[in-house]
Amino acid sequence: MEWKLKPIAKVSNGVEETPEDWDVVESELIFRKDYVQGLYRLSHFHHIWVIFGFHRGPETKLKVHPRRDPSKPLVGVFASRSPTRPNKLGLTLVELVSVRGNVVKVRGLDAFDGSPVFDIKPYEKEIDY
Amino acid sequence: MEWKLKPIAKVSNGVEETPEDWDVVESELIFRKDYVQGLYRLSHFHHIWVIFGFHRGPETKLKVHPRRDPSKPLVGVFASRSPTRPNKLGLTLVELVSVRGNVVKVRGLDAFDGSPVFDIKPYEKEIDY
Repeated sequence: MEWKLKPIAKVSNGVEETPEDWDVVESELIFRKDYVQGLYRLSHFHHIWVIFGFHRGPETKLKVHPRRDPSKPLVGVFASRSPTRPNKLGLTLVELVSVRGNVVKVRGLDAFDGSPVFDIKPYEKEIDY
Repeated sequence: MEWKLKPIAKVSNGVEETPEDWDVVESELIFRKDYVQGLYRLSHFHHIWVIFGFHRGPETKLKVHPRRDPSKPLVGVFASRSPTRPNKLGLTLVELVSVRGNVVKVRGLDAFDGSPVFDIKPYEKEIDY
């Protein structure tokens, strides 16, 4: 079975190299105009999940050193957050800054400029612990 | 841009209809045999994220009633967890029960039998709040 995704939005943050601290990076998620209705009432939330693509195409590796630190023992890629995973999907909880038209501004997204966004979901404490 | 996903695992739980309480449902994620190495040390975690596909093909709706309750006012699909979203990706935090060979047993996954799994990630409190 194959599953085809189409981006619902694109990351705009000008970040081309890994910054010192992703937590302070602000990104705009520029949504497809025909999806603006899907953002209705999103601004009620303080945090959202972003599912995005590692679009620079890192090689798949089934075992990795956590946080690329060779002093840490190898773990399976599914026991890590490494981008070297099959399907190249990233998942990050970010702070929602604002929603204006088709632009959702967030803080703390560890995605490079131009990354495709495939979904966002509201963070709900009772579901997400 | 199009992004093609291939399942890394399949959900086996015998669930064909929405149960009374998903929280108690146990599911086996049957991994592709060639991905078993990627599960190394996963069993150290108590909870994991599962990204899966709503494979029964719900129609896309940009506005929905939360939890299909018509008494609740409409919200945008991206302000909800509804399966009627573009790309049909589900995201659930589940309890990790066991890891044996290519079988990962979890509790609390709200996915029907046969759902494709596209990624799993360890839950880490300091990242995921």
